[in-house]
Amino acid sequence: MIMTATLKLGQLAEFLGATLRGSEDTDITGLATLQEAGPGQLSFLANPQYRKFLPDCKAAAVLLKAADAEGYEGAALVVPDPYLAYARVSHLFDPKPKAAAGIHASAVVAPDAVVHPSASIGAFAVIESGAQIGADTAIGAHCFIGARCVIGEGGWLAPRVTLYHDVRIGKRVVIQSGAVLGGEGFGFANQKGVWNKIAQIGGVSIGDDVEIGVNTAVDRGALADTVIGNGVKLDNQIQIAHNVQIGDNTAMAACVGISGSTRIGKNCMLAGGVGLVGHIDICDGVFITGMTMVTHSITEPGAYSSGTAMQPAGEWRKSAARLRQIDDMFRRLKQVEKRVQSVTPDDKASSDG
Amino acid sequence: MIMTATLKLGQLAEFLGATLRGSEDTDITGLATLQEAGPGQLSFLANPQYRKFLPDCKAAAVLLKAADAEGYEGAALVVPDPYLAYARVSHLFDPKPKAAAGIHASAVVAPDAVVHPSASIGAFAVIESGAQIGADTAIGAHCFIGARCVIGEGGWLAPRVTLYHDVRIGKRVVIQSGAVLGGEGFGFANQKGVWNKIAQIGGVSIGDDVEIGVNTAVDRGALADTVIGNGVKLDNQIQIAHNVQIGDNTAMAACVGISGSTRIGKNCMLAGGVGLVGHIDICDGVFITGMTMVTHSITEPGAYSSGTAMQPAGEWRKSAARLRQIDDMFRRLKQVEKRVQSVTPDDKASSDG
Amino acid sequence: MIMTATLKLGQLAEFLGATLRGSEDTDITGLATLQEAGPGQLSFLANPQYRKFLPDCKAAAVLLKAADAEGYEGAALVVPDPYLAYARVSHLFDPKPKAAAGIHASAVVAPDAVVHPSASIGAFAVIESGAQIGADTAIGAHCFIGARCVIGEGGWLAPRVTLYHDVRIGKRVVIQSGAVLGGEGFGFANQKGVWNKIAQIGGVSIGDDVEIGVNTAVDRGALADTVIGNGVKLDNQIQIAHNVQIGDNTAMAACVGISGSTRIGKNCMLAGGVGLVGHIDICDGVFITGMTMVTHSITEPGAYSSGTAMQPAGEWRKSAARLRQIDDMFRRLKQVEKRVQSVTPDDKASSDG
Repeated sequence: MIMTATLKLGQLAEFLGATLRGSEDTDITGLATLQEAGPGQLSFLANPQYRKFLPDCKAAAVLLKAADAEGYEGAALVVPDPYLAYARVSHLFDPKPKAAAGIHASAVVAPDAVVHPSASIGAFAVIESGAQIGADTAIGAHCFIGARCVIGEGGWLAPRVTLYHDVRIGKRVVIQSGAVLGGEGFGFANQKGVWNKIAQIGGVSIGDDVEIGVNTAVDRGALADTVIGNGVKLDNQIQIAHNVQIGDNTAMAACVGISGSTRIGKNCMLAGGVGLVGHIDICDGVFITGMTMVTHSITEPGAYSSGTAMQPAGEWRKSAARLRQIDDMFRRLKQVEKRVQSVTPDDKASSDG
Repeated sequence: MIMTATLKLGQLAEFLGATLRGSEDTDITGLATLQEAGPGQLSFLANPQYRKFLPDCKAAAVLLKAADAEGYEGAALVVPDPYLAYARVSHLFDPKPKAAAGIHASAVVAPDAVVHPSASIGAFAVIESGAQIGADTAIGAHCFIGARCVIGEGGWLAPRVTLYHDVRIGKRVVIQSGAVLGGEGFGFANQKGVWNKIAQIGGVSIGDDVEIGVNTAVDRGALADTVIGNGVKLDNQIQIAHNVQIGDNTAMAACVGISGSTRIGKNCMLAGGVGLVGHIDICDGVFITGMTMVTHSITEPGAYSSGTAMQPAGEWRKSAARLRQIDDMFRRLKQVEKRVQSVTPDDKASSDG
Repeated sequence: MIMTATLKLGQLAEFLGATLRGSEDTDITGLATLQEAGPGQLSFLANPQYRKFLPDCKAAAVLLKAADAEGYEGAALVVPDPYLAYARVSHLFDPKPKAAAGIHASAVVAPDAVVHPSASIGAFAVIESGAQIGADTAIGAHCFIGARCVIGEGGWLAPRVTLYHDVRIGKRVVIQSGAVLGGEGFGFANQKGVWNKIAQIGGVSIGDDVEIGVNTAVDRGALADTVIGNGVKLDNQIQIAHNVQIGDNTAMAACVGISGSTRIGKNCMLAGGVGLVGHIDICDGVFITGMTMVTHSITEPGAYSSGTAMQPAGEWRKSAARLRQIDDMFRRLKQVEKRVQSVTPDDKASSDG
């Protein structure tokens, strides 16, 4: 456990606009789950299935809904949404070092790049010609910011992020280590079996309040830009191909792959390992479960899935083998239905699916 | 839109060997799709489903097949293969900065490394002992070129590419940011539950005209080399394990994973997210659709698939549950067939699949 | 073929404790497979299916079990486990350059970081405040070691590895290029459709003898640490989300994704492309086959699978379409069974699955 700050419970109540139940002088030095919290730590109850841990909780105080606070004897900060309150408070206890303003002596910054005086440029960073770095934005060590890139205010690029040329990024954008924005998408014209490369002359446009995860790739557009809307959250190891468009506040878990020119609406959620083919449209408000293969457009909000349920390997081998016969099974079933029908006719014939 | 160059339509016709329909003096400043092209932009019609956008196209000129040019009133460059012509022309309008020849002052180059005078070595690049960089090859910032690596002429390594020691690369090879060639493959000998590492003493051999995508990994061989043929195109986030061999002009879309010692033929295409187990052979001319799991060798050219079609999550749950019963269903179907047969015998008994 | 060392066969016999059959003065300059080995090379027979290559093997000597050595005329090192012996011997012939002790002149090391005098710090490495690098540990070029990280003795970080702050690593740990440890996990609280970031204030704890592959990501914990046990081997392109716990000696092949807070036992093996949802428990001794989707906890050791077998694409389309009707098929099958039962009643009614 890393101790980073000490705040009074009363300060936290004020910060959150919470109702304080307990002493405002209690020192809070960190955050922990209900099971693990000890003296000096603040905890929270968000998921009802953890309610059972509340009675024995050793936390100095707990973020609780009014209903949960009723039966609880310990100190509490009563809030409408404990999980959201935890999210807000978490930043007060973040041990992440703050980057100092200014350009590290080892960084290579083009003479015509514009770096705001309040921005921070880390060791061995490279800022190319015509790039602009906004106020209070921190560029980590080993970052490469290509020609004419624009990064808005209040952003954070972790160490070792690559932006190719002509990537435009909004305000308060966080990019984790290893992410690459503006790579050359997979565009080739086949000529008698040989692939001819198509120059990728578009750029990348990233909205405000976007987060991009570790080792995630967002390719530049082939002609126009690849576009990621405001508030989009991309987890680690994601692949966004050229010309993809992602609507505001859509979130994707790790290992998702989106093929070229596909458009995804607003407020969608893609679970881990989902794959989308290219040139399809996903409407707003779609939830796709883990490892689903999406091969056509989705026009209705809702949840979608593909794949098969896990089985012990021996049973799975049988299922997988039988599945290859399912079309034959279907035809045999129809056949036997017909013959049974001829023997025992009734009014309600089975439908031919 | 990034403006990068201005060329006369007549120059483009000459460059492509195209038949010009329109004024050779028209200025062309960029490329765009039929729907998005405006004055000064060249467009193209390759996919017939976009033919509907041709009549209202605002492009200064369009790359067209003779048949499509017939009915079109605007300026055109008539070519046998508009998509290929677009590919060739695209490079004339690429805003990607050209690297200047020479070694950046910050780069660390071993005394016995051989860098051609026309090559470019970017900021903070590291070139280790015995490495050779060919003519007109550009090594981006933050690249690491290990001992004894050889990179042929005319190549481009984007910023932040890692080559471990003893990686041999042909001519005109492009490697995108974050790619790692020559990493130590996953080789361990299990001794009573504990894994003993096997040193990976082979290298990597990459042919001419290969492209390797963002954050793609190509492991070195355990004993002999991992081998990638001429003209192979690997998209982003791909995993190529040790001792894999890939034939000429095979292309793989993003997120493909190839396990150790598998051999893939020439002119194959693997769509996104495909996975191959180790120690299998895929013959020439195989196409594998997205997210397919390949568990055995393929000996006949053609298209192959696995996986299940996406459904609304509620229906999918039923399908997935029933699939676990498919072997039981099969046996019950056989049983009912037998009993029906005993009641209504006919000549053509249903086959036992 | 890279020649790296010359050892006498007698020296190797002594190193391995092997029974030597042949001249102890034979020079061994490298390792190769039975099919490829030539003069001066040592080979091995581990997999019985390669036994057919033994008679014609041109190796200077072969690592063999006693039983296999009986019928073999050439020189041999007789050992109980030839594959393990090969693993041990492989390191003697590894051409990987050894890093020299000391800190490269270009590295940026915080004044209060503690680097053991026998450790090696590569070019352009950044070592942040309070970090500790153990004896005989090599930190490659372009590595970033965040504040307060601790790396034990005898480790090797390939070029370009990122450790965020507060990552604790045991002894003899190997981390391949592009890996990122301690990235900020995917934690957001949704407030009326907008995602609020949760600071990730835990760290990462890595045991002894761990290997982490190329471009693999291990996120830091949200509150407590993400924990990877002793002897764990992670291949390339793996995603380990926040708060995951992995037991000792578990191995994962490439492209595996583990969602947040999932716990995996000891001595498990996950094949390539496997995905696990979050908040589940996998017991010790579980083997999961390639590309399996794991959506619930596993409480019994054994092998588990999901997915469907590959088919020619035309047949697959039929199977995939029919699978969407499987629940309907099931109900129709039950119906026809009932009707057949009513016509040809017997004692053993078909069970209702």
